[in-house]
Amino acid sequence: MTDTIDSQRVDEILASFFIRSKARAARMHPDYLTMWERLEACTVGGKRFRPRLIMTVYGLLGGKDTTTAATVAASFELLHTALIVHDDVVDRDFARRGVPNVSGSYRDFAAAGGSDRTRAEHTGLSVGVIAGDLALANAYRLMGEVDADLPTRQRLGDILDEAVFASAAGELLDILGPLNLTPQTVEEVLQMARLKTAVYSFEAPLQAAAVLAGAEDRLTEALGAFGRDIGIAYQVADDLIGVFGDESLTGKVGWGDLREGKRTTLIAHAAAQPQWRRISALIADPELTAMGAAEIRTLLMESGARTHSTQLAQDFTHRALQHLAAPYVPQDVRNGLAPIIDVVAERVHL
Amino acid sequence: MTDTIDSQRVDEILASFFIRSKARAARMHPDYLTMWERLEACTVGGKRFRPRLIMTVYGLLGGKDTTTAATVAASFELLHTALIVHDDVVDRDFARRGVPNVSGSYRDFAAAGGSDRTRAEHTGLSVGVIAGDLALANAYRLMGEVDADLPTRQRLGDILDEAVFASAAGELLDILGPLNLTPQTVEEVLQMARLKTAVYSFEAPLQAAAVLAGAEDRLTEALGAFGRDIGIAYQVADDLIGVFGDESLTGKVGWGDLREGKRTTLIAHAAAQPQWRRISALIADPELTAMGAAEIRTLLMESGARTHSTQLAQDFTHRALQHLAAPYVPQDVRNGLAPIIDVVAERVHL
Repeated sequence: MTDTIDSQRVDEILASFFIRSKARAARMHPDYLTMWERLEACTVGGKRFRPRLIMTVYGLLGGKDTTTAATVAASFELLHTALIVHDDVVDRDFARRGVPNVSGSYRDFAAAGGSDRTRAEHTGLSVGVIAGDLALANAYRLMGEVDADLPTRQRLGDILDEAVFASAAGELLDILGPLNLTPQTVEEVLQMARLKTAVYSFEAPLQAAAVLAGAEDRLTEALGAFGRDIGIAYQVADDLIGVFGDESLTGKVGWGDLREGKRTTLIAHAAAQPQWRRISALIADPELTAMGAAEIRTLLMESGARTHSTQLAQDFTHRALQHLAAPYVPQDVRNGLAPIIDVVAERVHL
Repeated sequence: MTDTIDSQRVDEILASFFIRSKARAARMHPDYLTMWERLEACTVGGKRFRPRLIMTVYGLLGGKDTTTAATVAASFELLHTALIVHDDVVDRDFARRGVPNVSGSYRDFAAAGGSDRTRAEHTGLSVGVIAGDLALANAYRLMGEVDADLPTRQRLGDILDEAVFASAAGELLDILGPLNLTPQTVEEVLQMARLKTAVYSFEAPLQAAAVLAGAEDRLTEALGAFGRDIGIAYQVADDLIGVFGDESLTGKVGWGDLREGKRTTLIAHAAAQPQWRRISALIADPELTAMGAAEIRTLLMESGARTHSTQLAQDFTHRALQHLAAPYVPQDVRNGLAPIIDVVAERVHL
């Protein structure tokens, strides 16, 4: 799915955005410049998944205005940054990929200045709120700079809006989930996967690329529907990896998801099985050991949860492919999207 | 400054925005609807200061398209909501005007569900992050819906962007301020007043009204400059009230600002005077009593801080008026803005 030149254009637009922002910030206060530098650091080294998806599909649909597409792609990348920065605030995570995030670096700064731990953490989270706000506002700002006709701009605005609206819903349900007395159902977990991940990472970028390339409405809809279903499949597969994946390949601790009690389709399915009594005694325990995790894995397999989730991921992948089977979806687009499907497929057939 | 009919139009646009949003939210999840209801509650009963400023000045400049102006005004009101919701998260405030805010109502909800205090507070603050994000995103969204030509839309976008950029800088400096070993200087306090209050509450709304009414550039600039200076004067005067105001008139506890150690021009000035040794021993103490507050007030007067801050507010008011003295500022506009100046003037001559 990679096109190096197109990806470079997105990086250039983001770099130019940060150069302008840092210059403006420096005129206000040196501390503001530092914050912008740390926000920029959050966007560097990412996989640029959404930008690459947009640039790829836009190109496959015959789009020629790389700069405009890259502006839309940069907007989605800033939205992604905003969501992860605020998600880290909500999860009280102070690092990402092993490196201090915005909140982590300001927590450390406050602690070095003599703040006690609670106060330093709150300082870090507070700066995270502000930094995420700036990324969010500028996702809208970049989208507003897109050089296109009014109807196209309005549709792009609607798509961005829907992505934000759905992601906020997903985050809210994620926050409130632990307050529910009963475990979530499989349907609820799938809905959250859709709201929190599928819309802004798959559905909306695909729709935006299609609208920008001037695709007919039914093609835009088909691509959006493909994105929604493959996005859900991706999340289900990712949750499978989080529990059954090989740590040396995934880079994640093999039982982090189990230790934090992440609500997944695996857990939702197992909750209705006899094995749940034992699983619920072990799971969501900060002290969970490798041995405890191994026992949960065995119980999840015995309960049929692993088979069930694998099947779900396959079903959603299948549904996603059906949306692409329509005759008005160009064969090039089908082929071009194959790598995304492969990512899911590889995860399911561990 | 009030025009009832114009204000009603802003309320209608906000009400219609919330009706649409709540309907969309309800289709996703009942809990999401509840969150939107609580966010809406934050916008009801406010003073609508920025919308009234926009509608008044737009009308005085001959603007006739009330709906478009009200859309811009509604955008600024949502920005205001976003900033206060996130400011409350940063300040760990769970109530506003004596009523639980978004974070407070979700903290109480979590506590009622059995969460311990720390966890319940974090749940409340987390929902505050999401709710503020939605208000911020939709401030951009509403501005994007303004029915105007492209150059006007772009300038409105620039003004909103500058308001967000400056407010975030002000909030950041507010968060990092307590980490500085030396008290802030008067200049630093004034800069923060400008960034955190004057730009988004005065300067930007006035500029937006002028741009929308098709005012010539120098008039737009003069109104923005007036807004910047009167906004700073307002903040200085507000800080004077926070310390010397009559509790029965201000509705604030007479020594809340002293108890929390709020950084004001009063404190910045006093910090360089001999009285500071005693003041610094009393101030920023959660246990501060009425008697301690009375002693600080006396010391602030003795140190010349009260006279100095009163003079500052008067100077900035004077500077603000000078911007309006230019011959290209219509007399009607000068007269129409008088009530804002009166608000500051009344506060300074307590």
